[in-house]
Amino acid sequence: MPQFLTTADAGFEAAFAALLGMKREDAPDVDAAVAAIIADVRDRGDAAVIALTEQFDRLALTPATLAFSDTQIDAEIAKVSAEDRAALELAADRIHAYHARQMPEDQQWTDEAGATLGWRWGPVTAAGLYVPGGLASYPSSVLMNAIPAKVAGVQRLVVACPTPGGVVNPLVLLASRIAGVDTVYRIGGAQAIAALAYGTATIPPVDKITGPGNAFVAAAKRRVFGRVGIDMIAGPSEILVIADRDNDPDWIALDLLSQAEHDESAQSILMTDDAAFGLAVVAAVEKWLQTLERRAIAGASWRDYGAVIVVDDLEQAATLSNRIAPEHLELCVSDPEALAKRITHAGAIFLGAWTPEAIGDYVGGPNHVLPTARSARFSSGLSVMDFLKRTTIAKMTPAALRAIGPGAERLAVSESLQAHGLSVRARLDRLNESQPPASITCTG
Amino acid sequence: MPQFLTTADAGFEAAFAALLGMKREDAPDVDAAVAAIIADVRDRGDAAVIALTEQFDRLALTPATLAFSDTQIDAEIAKVSAEDRAALELAADRIHAYHARQMPEDQQWTDEAGATLGWRWGPVTAAGLYVPGGLASYPSSVLMNAIPAKVAGVQRLVVACPTPGGVVNPLVLLASRIAGVDTVYRIGGAQAIAALAYGTATIPPVDKITGPGNAFVAAAKRRVFGRVGIDMIAGPSEILVIADRDNDPDWIALDLLSQAEHDESAQSILMTDDAAFGLAVVAAVEKWLQTLERRAIAGASWRDYGAVIVVDDLEQAATLSNRIAPEHLELCVSDPEALAKRITHAGAIFLGAWTPEAIGDYVGGPNHVLPTARSARFSSGLSVMDFLKRTTIAKMTPAALRAIGPGAERLAVSESLQAHGLSVRARLDRLNESQPPASITCTG
Repeated sequence: MPQFLTTADAGFEAAFAALLGMKREDAPDVDAAVAAIIADVRDRGDAAVIALTEQFDRLALTPATLAFSDTQIDAEIAKVSAEDRAALELAADRIHAYHARQMPEDQQWTDEAGATLGWRWGPVTAAGLYVPGGLASYPSSVLMNAIPAKVAGVQRLVVACPTPGGVVNPLVLLASRIAGVDTVYRIGGAQAIAALAYGTATIPPVDKITGPGNAFVAAAKRRVFGRVGIDMIAGPSEILVIADRDNDPDWIALDLLSQAEHDESAQSILMTDDAAFGLAVVAAVEKWLQTLERRAIAGASWRDYGAVIVVDDLEQAATLSNRIAPEHLELCVSDPEALAKRITHAGAIFLGAWTPEAIGDYVGGPNHVLPTARSARFSSGLSVMDFLKRTTIAKMTPAALRAIGPGAERLAVSESLQAHGLSVRARLDRLNESQPPASITCTG
Repeated sequence: MPQFLTTADAGFEAAFAALLGMKREDAPDVDAAVAAIIADVRDRGDAAVIALTEQFDRLALTPATLAFSDTQIDAEIAKVSAEDRAALELAADRIHAYHARQMPEDQQWTDEAGATLGWRWGPVTAAGLYVPGGLASYPSSVLMNAIPAKVAGVQRLVVACPTPGGVVNPLVLLASRIAGVDTVYRIGGAQAIAALAYGTATIPPVDKITGPGNAFVAAAKRRVFGRVGIDMIAGPSEILVIADRDNDPDWIALDLLSQAEHDESAQSILMTDDAAFGLAVVAAVEKWLQTLERRAIAGASWRDYGAVIVVDDLEQAATLSNRIAPEHLELCVSDPEALAKRITHAGAIFLGAWTPEAIGDYVGGPNHVLPTARSARFSSGLSVMDFLKRTTIAKMTPAALRAIGPGAERLAVSESLQAHGLSVRARLDRLNESQPPASITCTG
């Protein structure tokens, strides 16, 4: 039984604040070990990566076998059923269509001073996607990371995916091929992150690393940040469902459980304006927990971090939701668009009871890599923007410099940056000369 | 005399690689001290902030005097000359006009499956801008940080600026007022970052912290990242000037020196296709160094990190520039637009010799907070986007769910996420019932 809170109760604010402040993840401190691994890979390159892969993944590789060959990939992909392939292709098409609309436009204009200003976007040259091995090896995550990179125009896109004991998920290889990944390295952990960031003789360095991973991977991403760009460091998954009484308790229970089954640290919260409906959902969760394959995980998550919050009305639900800033937010109410207008912080919103969150995990189109742990207050899900960067452009004419240069000179002097001021003054003085000699007329 | 390299020389590639890999900053390891300060502020709140301000800034404050009063700000602002005020207002107007064009648009569409998809942008609720005290207290940086936040729609915008010995820069207060900052706290260092991230009785917490600072501030920003959003951790400033022989060596020398005077760790590089012009610029730099107030700083930067690179042609210059990925790039050539087309990585491009980089520091319009240390390969300057976040939207109709739901179910099963599949299946089964009973028809 999860927490059952009612906003009308005297102790609600304290209980809700405790729920907000709840620490659901106790990451082991692997920073020293990770620092040593990164130093080893920087020092010994391929030899270190190979030794660490033998140690951690019980797999003997050589520089020539660090990446899967096309033949190996063909053989693995042949194992995938036609139905699974069709589902992956449907997902890839829809994710591509959604993300293609995210491409921002370059801008350039000339203002009243005569200055030409603007910016333009360009892709990072090379990106590396980390894909966990074992149970958490999700082909859907390959699509969600690789497709925005391809849409952005990344030239070289590689995957690092550990294959403990040599075992690989064929769907991960198929998803990589569908998404246009160039190379799949069968390496993992901090050694993979270090190899992607610094490069080895066999593995060229990338500019950006994205994708989820365990504590070693997360610590390594933090350490190489600055050398390369990284995406967010994701925490355990969360869902908030706001549902009125006109819902099927089974549907809502399954939506809550589909977060809970991810991880014992996942969090599923229901807000409803009807206490009886809340209790019906709790009963439905208990019923489904009897039969779920992952009932141990889902049950622990629901028991330790789950909550049902009975609110006075939907407006109050929106206010509380904004304090939570949930990663996933389902609005199963009669007018979900109206309620959505009151939502200021959420990673992804699912409108109406016909939109279970699981649709968004796979085939909806929007990205499933979303801000966790209240970070939707200040950050966004993965997008094409994560694989682009912007260069600003400025061009002055002599007239533009005459108009705004003196202001720059004045501010430079006020900040005691004399050379800044002189670099403007030298040009303004030239403009004030009546006949600049041709030999020193500047170009551009 | 800086390094003088010629691409035609045998040793060029090694020398250029060494230049690229040069470590210009040796940040002291203050992480343990910063961790203790953050813990103290989380524990004791205002009392810790006040004690640390007394210790580091020799300034006795109370909760009531942590922020400047309006009366104090009025009195300080009255000291600013009309010329300085006009220059700040010109800069603010131009920065505002540029950044207003960055506001992204929300999108929503319905696709062929009947799914309504899209996203919308919203501002972070509260942002804190760090402004260093003392020599590096730049009013222009207040404008460059605060104006994008205001354009984004941030509701509460505060500045933290230490005032060692009680001394404040009136221009910082004026810039804060012009930019619409709500509150200026006279606190600094790791204690200011901790107070902004976690809040105290007097200082409400913010969602995003931006702005430059010393090693303590940088370490504190790294530590509070996740609790709040942060901007980049900026390294020492850099400029690359690509100039042909038809330039005035004095202009180019002053442009190089206007980076060098920032910091002994700053880096100024000239690329030219004319060795004689390169030598003329070196001579001009030496001449100007005789007279500059900050000649000790600028001279050290130029001697230790400066470089002149003689290239075969401008195409080669573009290729080398992209390996550097400079923060600032001046193109002082006869057709700067054509050369700019070859540039793939740069924080900001200044086109033509009438556009000294100093214009971009103050009044050009684009932001002067830019990616350093080769990070223009994967990141962008500060913008309105840094104060916005995106929420994705998805809404299925029954028909849309019938079209794409089976694919989601299939992928859920392939990833062994049973509840995900069941949450879709329960809805699909309803659709397959001929007459769903009214009582369990779902809303939305």
